[in-house]
Amino acid sequence: MAVQTVSNTDNATTAAGSAASDAGTVDLGPAAALSCRECGERFELGPIFACQSCFGPLEVAYDLPAGDPEDLKKRIAAGPDNIWRYAPLLPVPADVASKPNINPGFTKLVKADNLARELGVTGGLYVKDDSGNPTHSFKDRVVAIAVEAARAFGFTTLSCSSTGNLAGAVGAAAARAGFRSCVFIPHDLEQGKVVMAAIYGGELVGIEGNYDDVNRFCSELIGDPLGEGWGFVNVNLRPYYGEGSKTLAYEICEQLGWVLPDQLVIPVASGSQLTKIDKGLKELIALGLVEDKPYKIFGAQAEGCSPVSVAFKAGHDVVRPQKPNTIAKSLAIGNPADGPYVLDIARRTGGAVEDVNDEQVVDAIKLLARTEGIFAETAGGVTVGVTRKLIEAGLLDPALTTVVLNTGDGLKTLDAVAPTTGPTATIPPSLDAFRAAGLAR
Amino acid sequence: MAVQTVSNTDNATTAAGSAASDAGTVDLGPAAALSCRECGERFELGPIFACQSCFGPLEVAYDLPAGDPEDLKKRIAAGPDNIWRYAPLLPVPADVASKPNINPGFTKLVKADNLARELGVTGGLYVKDDSGNPTHSFKDRVVAIAVEAARAFGFTTLSCSSTGNLAGAVGAAAARAGFRSCVFIPHDLEQGKVVMAAIYGGELVGIEGNYDDVNRFCSELIGDPLGEGWGFVNVNLRPYYGEGSKTLAYEICEQLGWVLPDQLVIPVASGSQLTKIDKGLKELIALGLVEDKPYKIFGAQAEGCSPVSVAFKAGHDVVRPQKPNTIAKSLAIGNPADGPYVLDIARRTGGAVEDVNDEQVVDAIKLLARTEGIFAETAGGVTVGVTRKLIEAGLLDPALTTVVLNTGDGLKTLDAVAPTTGPTATIPPSLDAFRAAGLAR
Repeated sequence: MAVQTVSNTDNATTAAGSAASDAGTVDLGPAAALSCRECGERFELGPIFACQSCFGPLEVAYDLPAGDPEDLKKRIAAGPDNIWRYAPLLPVPADVASKPNINPGFTKLVKADNLARELGVTGGLYVKDDSGNPTHSFKDRVVAIAVEAARAFGFTTLSCSSTGNLAGAVGAAAARAGFRSCVFIPHDLEQGKVVMAAIYGGELVGIEGNYDDVNRFCSELIGDPLGEGWGFVNVNLRPYYGEGSKTLAYEICEQLGWVLPDQLVIPVASGSQLTKIDKGLKELIALGLVEDKPYKIFGAQAEGCSPVSVAFKAGHDVVRPQKPNTIAKSLAIGNPADGPYVLDIARRTGGAVEDVNDEQVVDAIKLLARTEGIFAETAGGVTVGVTRKLIEAGLLDPALTTVVLNTGDGLKTLDAVAPTTGPTATIPPSLDAFRAAGLAR
Repeated sequence: MAVQTVSNTDNATTAAGSAASDAGTVDLGPAAALSCRECGERFELGPIFACQSCFGPLEVAYDLPAGDPEDLKKRIAAGPDNIWRYAPLLPVPADVASKPNINPGFTKLVKADNLARELGVTGGLYVKDDSGNPTHSFKDRVVAIAVEAARAFGFTTLSCSSTGNLAGAVGAAAARAGFRSCVFIPHDLEQGKVVMAAIYGGELVGIEGNYDDVNRFCSELIGDPLGEGWGFVNVNLRPYYGEGSKTLAYEICEQLGWVLPDQLVIPVASGSQLTKIDKGLKELIALGLVEDKPYKIFGAQAEGCSPVSVAFKAGHDVVRPQKPNTIAKSLAIGNPADGPYVLDIARRTGGAVEDVNDEQVVDAIKLLARTEGIFAETAGGVTVGVTRKLIEAGLLDPALTTVVLNTGDGLKTLDAVAPTTGPTATIPPSLDAFRAAGLAR
């Protein structure tokens, strides 16, 4: 069995929480084990991420609560207005809501009637708007779960490599939860992104090189004694981290009145989010929280980084890596780890994977803003743009209930829309000038 | 009696809603009349903002719900997770939640234990974090109410003058609620702010001049036939608009378990927010929703625009205008309309008005970020900085429950912190370099 021992138990009683040097004492609620997604082998809960037999990715296996689903719904409804209302379904201790954390989630599910009219959707169109999270992206969900795993394993430093949203989410959550953070970024990021990563007061290290160099460096650090006691949220804590995306599935169904949507449009970067939303939906069915019925999952990529979409359309099972070149930088993962699983899910559920080009991304950002007053990140432009394209292609049924994800905030990708977004007119301060501009009505 | 007739009833059945050309049919829920804050004269509900007898400011007078407070609490708890849960206490129709609007509010009240430790607060410190609103500032609250007033009065265009937060809030709410918007800004705003104002697709007009010129132009427009059918959210809709700030008081008390906080620290720009929060607290007491007890209200300003703070400390009743010069631009109103009322309230409740300089604002932004993971706008730096200063001066009692407002988002004022916020180190991608940088532990 395979729990990597955590050696920094001396530091255990910091604000980050008490250490669990003995894996047997780890309390992560209903999480029972890690299980390999390829060969099914099970491992004790610990900071490991790859199967020791086949190197497949590990995910959390649960002893989910048995009993009357109506009781569970009541228990959830009585919980806090954040992801911890779903603690019985997550790898977190039962008293998680009393621990300091960033408490993301329960973001708005916006009934998007104006957008529905424009797209011709008649069956009910919703935007799940994760820009309402504490650092304004869905990353707060996954990081919040990683924080609790880090606490359980006695880690004292939280880390990640990042070019954007993740750095801010880790910095903010670490600050509040009482961890030290040390985040690695390419040294030449734009100043705005550096500020968002640095403001929370953790260590921020610019690495002289590109994002690949940063990742390579982090891999070395994890394997070195220098990295002992470090929780890299999306590497050695990845199995837990990933589970945070399930909360999107839970919230969508609860906000729809404990009903499965017919269709979901989800952005694909590594593919993890899409696979975990599918996992979450299946859990809700298994628990009897929603009635079982078919649902279709659609993946959305940017044309400039569309390895999964290309594979889907070519009928391939294998995803061929691409060198990303798109304004949708938060989706720009050229070699997506969960790509094959995304293909499986899209095909199994009768969905699809599609992509849109940068111009369509910008158009879709503006469409969502002018119809629903939601200013989305480029990733939100990708999902809205892909939704439109899928309807036009007859792949997404406009008569069915559809949920489109917006995973981030337009304030973070102003550059994408700035060149084409400006005043209608510029005039001197006089009524005559205003009348001449033709804007009075 | 004094309801300015709305002449655009021909356009009444737009997406914006049906017009109410006859003031008698205006349904704004419990709002019964407008009443002059100076002389008390009452007027029928309408798009007017100044007393026709004494030119004093008008505010909404209510027929508030009678009955068992516990029943009202239950009714509120059963409402939506936004400001419309308080519809029985707001100038909006009872079915407001079913109308398209931006639906702000019910933002997090964060128990700020880390910050409390740093500041020496032992009685419970909370940050009311309005960066979680749809366009990430408290302005969404006031604009959402103005939208319903505009709908009731049959207006079809929403407008305002703005240099920042308000433009985005009006643009977003108008887009979703089905109004045309036309917003006026100084022509030389930074590109980021222009994008945030323009992205929602309304008309955005750059005025060649400074903010005073923009305001003068808007005043002319309101008085001209060109402006017929236009609702200027903070001018002819101001009495309704202002009521949106009451929801901060309601939420804070409900989130504390229907208990009044002992002390509140509130930013002061025009002063409207502070006065309306006080109004909201008094309503809760009158309705029996909270137990009556003393509370102290503290106003917070930036030193570079501190007319109310200066008057408070000098013991004056009159506020002498200042020419603003501060990084806290969202508070930079040199001649605050509600300044004298702020002085009254601070003195009546045993509070104070204090200011901090720009360096202290930046320090406080960083303090809040590194303790609680909340990245505040400069206005949030002002309230946190003033809280620290008031504690040091012995004016704010650290043994009492204290709520500090953060009314906006740090992403909108990156420039304020950028010069002093950056990487801890920049290194080549090697473990040796990392070791040498002294960051491993």
